[in-house]
Amino acid sequence: MYYIGIDLGGTQIKAGIIDEEGSIVSKAETATLADRPYQDVARDMAMCSLQALEKSGLTLNDIGGVGIGIPGLADNVTGRVIFCTNLGWYDIPLRDELQKYMHLPILIDNDATVAGFAESMAGVSRGLHSSVFLTLGTGVGGGIVIDGKPWTGAHGVASEIGHLTMEIDGIPCTCGKKGCLERYCSATALIHMAEEVCSNNPECALMKKAGGNTKNITGRMVIDLAKEGDEHALKIFHRYTKYLAIAINTIISFMDPDMIVLGGGISHAGKFLIDAVNEKLPEYLMFKTLPYSKIALASLGNDAGLIGAAMLTKAGLASKNS
Amino acid sequence: MYYIGIDLGGTQIKAGIIDEEGSIVSKAETATLADRPYQDVARDMAMCSLQALEKSGLTLNDIGGVGIGIPGLADNVTGRVIFCTNLGWYDIPLRDELQKYMHLPILIDNDATVAGFAESMAGVSRGLHSSVFLTLGTGVGGGIVIDGKPWTGAHGVASEIGHLTMEIDGIPCTCGKKGCLERYCSATALIHMAEEVCSNNPECALMKKAGGNTKNITGRMVIDLAKEGDEHALKIFHRYTKYLAIAINTIISFMDPDMIVLGGGISHAGKFLIDAVNEKLPEYLMFKTLPYSKIALASLGNDAGLIGAAMLTKAGLASKNS
Repeated sequence: MYYIGIDLGGTQIKAGIIDEEGSIVSKAETATLADRPYQDVARDMAMCSLQALEKSGLTLNDIGGVGIGIPGLADNVTGRVIFCTNLGWYDIPLRDELQKYMHLPILIDNDATVAGFAESMAGVSRGLHSSVFLTLGTGVGGGIVIDGKPWTGAHGVASEIGHLTMEIDGIPCTCGKKGCLERYCSATALIHMAEEVCSNNPECALMKKAGGNTKNITGRMVIDLAKEGDEHALKIFHRYTKYLAIAINTIISFMDPDMIVLGGGISHAGKFLIDAVNEKLPEYLMFKTLPYSKIALASLGNDAGLIGAAMLTKAGLASKNS
Repeated sequence: MYYIGIDLGGTQIKAGIIDEEGSIVSKAETATLADRPYQDVARDMAMCSLQALEKSGLTLNDIGGVGIGIPGLADNVTGRVIFCTNLGWYDIPLRDELQKYMHLPILIDNDATVAGFAESMAGVSRGLHSSVFLTLGTGVGGGIVIDGKPWTGAHGVASEIGHLTMEIDGIPCTCGKKGCLERYCSATALIHMAEEVCSNNPECALMKKAGGNTKNITGRMVIDLAKEGDEHALKIFHRYTKYLAIAINTIISFMDPDMIVLGGGISHAGKFLIDAVNEKLPEYLMFKTLPYSKIALASLGNDAGLIGAAMLTKAGLASKNS
C-alpha cells in the first residue's frame, strides 16, 4: 500500500506518494496563493496529489489514505481546520472539500507534529520510543513523539514548544504573549541579535556581508561567518546557542526523551550547531552526571512534512483535536 | 493482595498498608534522623512497615510488594538510590538493605512522581489518560502520568518541572542554575515575595501577623490575609499566581494533559488558589478559544506518597532510572 502526503505551506503546496517504509516514490508541487478562496487551494492540493500519483505510475486503488500537514490546528473528528493563521483560515471544512476529488480517508495534523513523526518513522529518531522535534525557523515548532506515536495532548494543543515562557515579561511575541521561547531560539531571533550587534559595530564583517544594511542579514550569513571564526558573528552565535541550550534543558527536565531532533533553517549549521549546544548544555542540566537525551540533526529536510503526513495515515493516527 | 508503601522524607519515614483500590488499611511513622548511617534508616523503614502490617492484622504473605517514594532518584535495575540530596545519600543500595528484613519485590521512585501517580490511581485525576502533578512546597516537584502510567523519561530524569527555566539569568536556584521555575512558584518563593513587600511596608498587616519579623512569615499567613482582602497580601498573592499561571501554561503548551493537579503546602489555599489561577491563565494560553487542561487540587494530601509508592508496586511499574 502507498499513502499520499501533503505539506500545505503558506507559499507552496507539496504532495508526495510515500511507501510503507516512509520513502518518497514521487513528488509534485504548486503555489499555495493563500489569498484565494479555500476551495481553490483545496482543489490544487488534490490536483497536486494526483499529479504526483501519475508520476508514480500508481492509481488511487494503490493508495491507503491522505495525510496533510498544516501550519495550524485541525479537528480530525469533523475534518475541519480550526485555524491556520498564515493562510487566513478559520474553521475550514478541508476534508470534505478534498474528498470531492479523492474518495480516501484523510487525516490533518500540525506541520511540526508530522515532521517530528516522520523523523521517528523514517529519519534520525527512527524506532525510538520518545523524541522531541524542534524546527528552528521563522518561528519554533515542536513535534513530540511518545511510544512511537505523535503526542498532541488531551485537547490537541500540546507541543507548542515555541510558546513556552523563557523570560517572564520578556520580548513581545507575535502570538500576543511575552517572553516566548521562539523569541530567543528561532532564526528570526538570531537575526534580531545580529541586527543589534551590527548596529553597535557598523564596521563588522557581518555588516559588510549584508551590504551595509541590517535588513539584509540572514541566519546563514551569521552562521557562515561564525564558522570562519569572525568575532562578532561568534558572539551572536554563542548568545543564540546559550538560549537554545536552555530551551533544550527545558525539554529534558520536562520530558527527558530519547532524542531531541533539530530541524528548520538554523539546523543547516549542522555539526557546528550540535557541538555548540552540547558544549553549553551541561551548565543547564539538572543532573550533570546522568545520561540525557541525544541531540541530533533532522535527516529528512524539507520532505519531513510529506512523509510524516503520509505515515500518520498509514498508522491510522489522529490526535483528538489536530 | 495488599502492598506496602513507604514515604521516605528528610524528617519522617511513613509506611502504610494499601489495598488494591489505593485505600490505606493502616499506617505507621517514625523519625528519619537522616544523619545516621543509611543502614539504620533502612532498618527503621522496614520496622515501620512491619508495624503498619501488624496494625492491619495482615501478614507478609498478604503483601505483593514494597514501593518507596524518595526525595531523589533511584535506579530500579540495581535497586540503588542514585542520590537523595537532603538525606546526604549518594549511590546507596537501599533495596538490598531493605530485603534483609522483607523478602519482597521492592521498587523505588521519586516522591513527586509517586504522589502524581497516586492521584491518578486513587485521587482527583483517577482514571485520566494524562496528568501533571505539581507540588508547591519548599521547592516545586513534578509528577507526570501518561497513558495512566508514571512518565519518568528515557533516562529517568523527566518531570523536574521545578527546574525548567522561567527567567533567563533569573533568580539563583539551590540547584546551581538560574531562573528555575521553583524560584517563582514554590512556597519559598511566595515567602520571599512577602518579605520584600513587608520590608517596604513595615506597617502592613502581614508584618504585624509575623510579629514584626519577616523571618516569621509563612505561606499560610500570606494566603489567610489575602483571603481576608488585605491589600499587601493580595498584591503578593497576585504576583505569585501570575507566575503559577505562566508555569501552568508551560505545562499546557508542552504536554496538554487532561488535568494539572496542584499539591503541596500552597495548595491548601484551595479554591481561592484555583480561582486565581483560572482567572489569570487565559492571558498566557496560546489558544484562547480551545479547551485546555482542567486545574484541580490534589485530594490525597500527605498520604499521596504512601499510596503512589504502593500502587507503583501493584502495577509492577518502574521507570528506567528512578
